[in-house]
Amino acid sequence: MSEEKLPARAENFSEWYNQVVQRAELADYAPVRGCMVVRPYGWSLWENIQAALDRRFKATGHVNAAFPLFIPMSFLEKEKEHVEGFSPELAVVTIGGGEKLEEPLVVRPTSETIIGYMYSKWIKSYRDLPVLINQWGNVVRWEMRTRLFLRTLEFYWQEGHTAHATEKEAEEETLRMLNIYTRFAVDDAAVPVIPGRKSNTEKFAGAVRSYTIEAMMGDTRALQAGTSHNLGQNFAQAFDIRYLDVNNQLQYCWTTSWGLSTRFIGAIIMTHGDDQGLVLPPRLAPIQIVIVPIYRNDAEKAQVMPVVERISRELTESNFRVKVDDRTEVTPGFKFNDWEMRGVPLRLEIGPKDVQNNSVMSARRDQPGKEGKKSLSQDQLPGQIAELLTDIQASLFDRALAFRDAHIFDPHDYEELKEIVQNGWAFSWWCGSDECEAKVKEDTKATTRCIPLDQPGGKGTCIVCGKPAEEKVYFARAY
Amino acid sequence: MSEEKLPARAENFSEWYNQVVQRAELADYAPVRGCMVVRPYGWSLWENIQAALDRRFKATGHVNAAFPLFIPMSFLEKEKEHVEGFSPELAVVTIGGGEKLEEPLVVRPTSETIIGYMYSKWIKSYRDLPVLINQWGNVVRWEMRTRLFLRTLEFYWQEGHTAHATEKEAEEETLRMLNIYTRFAVDDAAVPVIPGRKSNTEKFAGAVRSYTIEAMMGDTRALQAGTSHNLGQNFAQAFDIRYLDVNNQLQYCWTTSWGLSTRFIGAIIMTHGDDQGLVLPPRLAPIQIVIVPIYRNDAEKAQVMPVVERISRELTESNFRVKVDDRTEVTPGFKFNDWEMRGVPLRLEIGPKDVQNNSVMSARRDQPGKEGKKSLSQDQLPGQIAELLTDIQASLFDRALAFRDAHIFDPHDYEELKEIVQNGWAFSWWCGSDECEAKVKEDTKATTRCIPLDQPGGKGTCIVCGKPAEEKVYFARAY
Repeated sequence: MSEEKLPARAENFSEWYNQVVQRAELADYAPVRGCMVVRPYGWSLWENIQAALDRRFKATGHVNAAFPLFIPMSFLEKEKEHVEGFSPELAVVTIGGGEKLEEPLVVRPTSETIIGYMYSKWIKSYRDLPVLINQWGNVVRWEMRTRLFLRTLEFYWQEGHTAHATEKEAEEETLRMLNIYTRFAVDDAAVPVIPGRKSNTEKFAGAVRSYTIEAMMGDTRALQAGTSHNLGQNFAQAFDIRYLDVNNQLQYCWTTSWGLSTRFIGAIIMTHGDDQGLVLPPRLAPIQIVIVPIYRNDAEKAQVMPVVERISRELTESNFRVKVDDRTEVTPGFKFNDWEMRGVPLRLEIGPKDVQNNSVMSARRDQPGKEGKKSLSQDQLPGQIAELLTDIQASLFDRALAFRDAHIFDPHDYEELKEIVQNGWAFSWWCGSDECEAKVKEDTKATTRCIPLDQPGGKGTCIVCGKPAEEKVYFARAY
Repeated sequence: MSEEKLPARAENFSEWYNQVVQRAELADYAPVRGCMVVRPYGWSLWENIQAALDRRFKATGHVNAAFPLFIPMSFLEKEKEHVEGFSPELAVVTIGGGEKLEEPLVVRPTSETIIGYMYSKWIKSYRDLPVLINQWGNVVRWEMRTRLFLRTLEFYWQEGHTAHATEKEAEEETLRMLNIYTRFAVDDAAVPVIPGRKSNTEKFAGAVRSYTIEAMMGDTRALQAGTSHNLGQNFAQAFDIRYLDVNNQLQYCWTTSWGLSTRFIGAIIMTHGDDQGLVLPPRLAPIQIVIVPIYRNDAEKAQVMPVVERISRELTESNFRVKVDDRTEVTPGFKFNDWEMRGVPLRLEIGPKDVQNNSVMSARRDQPGKEGKKSLSQDQLPGQIAELLTDIQASLFDRALAFRDAHIFDPHDYEELKEIVQNGWAFSWWCGSDECEAKVKEDTKATTRCIPLDQPGGKGTCIVCGKPAEEKVYFARAY
């Protein structure tokens, strides 16, 4: 599995990515074009992402539910921009139980329409509001160019759908969820992100305003890592989602939707990975600590294994996620490479000398070689391990942040912008026009990533046309 | 919501069921024929079922993964019995991204085929075995007559798929998972079940042997609540799942599959529910304890609410799932009915007298009226509550078991069997022939439910044809 070297990340980032995904056994290609199989190690990572997000959703009053996979084609057509945005990407069921269907069914690409239909049945009065529902599930978009995790025909995600009495509450919810995505990315995944607003051309089909968190990958390209949409009354009008207000007047609701997908796994890989493979943030890693016993013969094995087992038990009881690699058919060196490929944050080696000295040797995944090795006492090990993992989590974030900030530039003119976006992001004043945005895309393949919430203040002139500009925007090539 | 009375369970069980599902807000009809929306309260129940099963799966070495929703039509055709069993029920995608597909894609009705394909890629050597993977997801079967939870076009389930080196290990796994389903049903859901083998005609399409847990619903009809299949080498041969054994010889694997679905929610409703609505077992209930404050004016409210909040906090910190119903627009009586409809196992009422007396009034859902009410001291409340919930859990099981056992009969002759299966189950000797089974079905609509693992021993004569019989079987009308 891990015997051949990976392609160097700096030389062929794309091939490095593909091989890491497969050799770390995160995912594999399915026999259907563009579909993926998420393997147990990858799914375990996704389960940890789910748990971290779900906890945050529930703490802010959201509940989960499940809406159908199939949506009548006519539903999509009720919201004009929505159907225009999604119709080229649909998978359509035309046969059911051996019969041609009267109305074709779309396999959901997203669920605003069918959830809107149900909300119109359920919501009667202001007392029913807000409705704060999330769904964990699979959706299908018929993409032509696909890559494992980043863009697949079927992917896994959560989609939140909320309904509110006022415009203000809907906007607050949209920003609350954007902030939850930001906290999750930063605190759980150690992925620095920039929260901001999408441009008019980049927003969700059917939204009034879309917000995004944008992350910089190891090749400096941008990745949209989660989005939160204020849908205004667009879907409420299309699906007649209305409530009786305190004065007994019928009013349209204000709705939002927000989603984060298995694409985020791609963001983790491309933010933290290195030439040895995957590097996982301790808070999300399926295995936080791998213990490798070291011995040359049965006598040494008999000394070592009881200590390995005691320490494994002790750490498991302290709620760490621990794996003992007790394979006998491969060498310790093979095991080191194997778990480095899989990105396990911390390795513990225990040999006869450690048994004698009441010690264990620790090796940090984020600091390869001697620099990351440190002998620990077996006494009060859980406390020492907790400290190390916290430190690893923080140093992954710091490293990613430093890399990102070193690759964001403020170009002096349009010529400089064109150069910058080949190997970084440009943060520039922009007049806000579709034309200037289109020109940059045409000239460089870079798109507007987001107008960050955090603006420098003041005014400037558009980097493209030189007209007055009120906001700065990030331009970058993106996944 | 809960103002109108439910139809009496004894008079119109079917209509009672439909109303309970909707009025307890477990699920609703979707706009696509035969599909359901699982509402937040129902989904929360399913999440608790998932957690209870997942814990048991992981404790026995299983891991989760995700395989694609779409299966090439040709895959299903590789296993003859499998395709015959499932082809009448398929939903088929024929259009993707606006183009007609060269090969139609089936929306998975179950995943033996696509998982078999992946296993043939992954499994090389005896060292890779056993493979023990489970998947939580949605599947689609084009059913004509549907009912919420019991039979819907799309449903939610888990499907385990394992591969083994030997026939013996595969059979052990099949029975291990049957036992896990049994323990879950009995210990977590308080649903008594009979584990047994399916007859030849009732087994899974493609299995060598199918096992089932069968439960008796409140109208005495049987419900298949979970199944575990020994697939022999059928799928290994169809998909070329082979491994090199210790002697470096290529061998076919032995595979199993096992599943339990949202149908189980139907089993819980129809096992425990009563004329007031749903009754949920405490171990799975989304809300275990509802606290209803009782006051007549602001002065009383000011006395009561701090105690309500303190007790709510105390119970939540002791890991109970607690809800305070502090609605002001409805009366306590309305709230009592509302939470009875939703099956919350325990209600606590706290009024001014309770504040004075350092007490709370508890009311058990399983014992309506005065009989189930008991005043508790506010001191050491979590311990008292834990005891009450344990007692409720046990009494639900005992009641269901007594009901079931009172409706199982051992008919003397075929005429008696025909009567019995109108209002109960017949436990009879059966020669094992398809013909006798078909005759019973034709005459009575009752089918063989299972040949229980627990047999009385000895031999008998077939209740239908009078020929020698080696095993006893349950005949019953079923959902």
